[in-house]
Amino acid sequence: MDRTGDERAMRAALALAARGPAVDPNPRVGAVVTDPAGRVVGRGYHRGAGSPHAEVEALAQAGAAASGGTAYVTLEPCDHTGRTGPCSQALVAAGVARVVFAQTDPHDAAAGGARTLQAAGVQVEGGLLVEQATALNRSWTAAVTAGRPRVVWKYAGTLDGRSAAADGTSRWITGPEARADVHRLRAEAGAVVVGTGTVLADDPSLTVRGPDDVPTGRQPLRVVVGRRDLPAGARVLDAAAETLQLRTHDPEQVLAVLHARGIRTVWLEGGPTLAAAFLAAGLVDEVVAYLAPTLLGAGPAVVADLGIGSLAGALQLHPTDVTVLGPDLRVRATTVHPPEGA
Amino acid sequence: MDRTGDERAMRAALALAARGPAVDPNPRVGAVVTDPAGRVVGRGYHRGAGSPHAEVEALAQAGAAASGGTAYVTLEPCDHTGRTGPCSQALVAAGVARVVFAQTDPHDAAAGGARTLQAAGVQVEGGLLVEQATALNRSWTAAVTAGRPRVVWKYAGTLDGRSAAADGTSRWITGPEARADVHRLRAEAGAVVVGTGTVLADDPSLTVRGPDDVPTGRQPLRVVVGRRDLPAGARVLDAAAETLQLRTHDPEQVLAVLHARGIRTVWLEGGPTLAAAFLAAGLVDEVVAYLAPTLLGAGPAVVADLGIGSLAGALQLHPTDVTVLGPDLRVRATTVHPPEGA
Repeated sequence: MDRTGDERAMRAALALAARGPAVDPNPRVGAVVTDPAGRVVGRGYHRGAGSPHAEVEALAQAGAAASGGTAYVTLEPCDHTGRTGPCSQALVAAGVARVVFAQTDPHDAAAGGARTLQAAGVQVEGGLLVEQATALNRSWTAAVTAGRPRVVWKYAGTLDGRSAAADGTSRWITGPEARADVHRLRAEAGAVVVGTGTVLADDPSLTVRGPDDVPTGRQPLRVVVGRRDLPAGARVLDAAAETLQLRTHDPEQVLAVLHARGIRTVWLEGGPTLAAAFLAAGLVDEVVAYLAPTLLGAGPAVVADLGIGSLAGALQLHPTDVTVLGPDLRVRATTVHPPEGA
Repeated sequence: MDRTGDERAMRAALALAARGPAVDPNPRVGAVVTDPAGRVVGRGYHRGAGSPHAEVEALAQAGAAASGGTAYVTLEPCDHTGRTGPCSQALVAAGVARVVFAQTDPHDAAAGGARTLQAAGVQVEGGLLVEQATALNRSWTAAVTAGRPRVVWKYAGTLDGRSAAADGTSRWITGPEARADVHRLRAEAGAVVVGTGTVLADDPSLTVRGPDDVPTGRQPLRVVVGRRDLPAGARVLDAAAETLQLRTHDPEQVLAVLHARGIRTVWLEGGPTLAAAFLAAGLVDEVVAYLAPTLLGAGPAVVADLGIGSLAGALQLHPTDVTVLGPDLRVRATTVHPPEGA
């Protein structure tokens, strides 16, 4: 067993995987195929939903040279027929003698192709560089595991926890550096979710914009939650990005719809009532708090009533990062209890 | 002019000054006296209110050798008769030919001894290593300049700005690392100030305590502000430290009393109403916020109404330090507008 050669090939597969789209219903996957002498004869990566899987692309490139060789894949080959056929069968058909993969398919144990490959006499090894592979698909893995998108709640507030002043003014609580950071992180989400109250109060456009305030690059789906009608001229209804209104107040229902649409990361931007509903339901995985060095002493709180009566019941977070952004602070923290289903 | 020799002597004087008490009505001052050949013949530092001034101590040590020599003092020699005579006259009487000082006396320009020394024919130079000298007496300088103690408002709250849960429970919002830090900073204050509401709700002892929760070292004056009577068994009335009740709600009055008592730093611990009164009056110089990575969604806010209606009126702070203390964050920030009189 050539461990150094295996690692080298898997690192090449990881580098290929990283070329795939960061925001997609599907995971980023890379594959490298070597011939029996260990020479690389095929490379492939997944370009996103609707494109061929990485293994299929690498096998096509390898052709007959794959026979008796090894396939290195960053994710356990699939075993189901979706828009493409099962990769397990494609590997068997190509005569690959050995399959090395990094991350195990996080769907049900039966979902992965390892068993099919082994039944067909292919030598299978999993877990090589698994941490690097999983890091490539953090939201996808969490979403597949939990059966819902990963939810990141973002808020901007004063040091004393106000999201707006007493008269409702809230622009801009944080400075330009923090606002630019919001656009950078928003771009990593499949959907941006707000309540109708936020649309009616602030008329946000919810697009990813550059320093010139012009929408730039891929735009997340804009989702407005709540039963109230939106004014016809609302910015969220412009042509800059797709918008979906979900006439419900149930976070689970919102996430079910978005999960079915292939959304893996939800960037929840509030307001306080909607954020409280998600938090109280245990449906927030990460909090990104932008804290301005100001005090208001009055005005709406960053989060509404969570039904917590006593300090012992406080919602605990685990801080992962504190960054100074101009005059403001950004605190990132994960929720301590894993989401239901995890 | 021997600049290197001057600096060396002033550094020695600064090191002497640092031996003085950090919390005292008087500033920390050090003095070095050299003979006409530049040899150090006297050293002194101020040991706190009621003790001799640094110059007097150094001159006593130097005796006749001071004649024709130089005195290096970290603060402009005083010109007034307090518990000790004016140092300016003592220097003249000792026959010192030259006086080099660092920080100018922040009292009225006429208060310092430089003019008296010059009038007596002594060569006087100020400003050598002034930053180091001022840093030794930050609170004293601020207090003398503003005519009131420097006020540091400390609070502990959740990430969403709550100082307690809906049922009033507040122990402990922050972890042991943050609480130990509170005791360390409390020890630097001349007085710890709370409202009667805090005493009635939390019954704090307000002492400086070590890890074993036993009072340790010099204790700040405990000050309770408000008209309500304190329960006879309140911890703040125990023998661990002196306690003063001021039956007023006026922050200016509180600070006037404490200034007259020689208090240079006030550590304002709340509650929300008292903190709001000080903030609204522009009488807070620094904010020390301990933020716990928790969310409550309800409960008393860390600061009560400040009379601010719109975001444009928000009280601006200038963050100076962010420190991670166990699971919690400590944010230190100064108020942007200098206190009245500064």
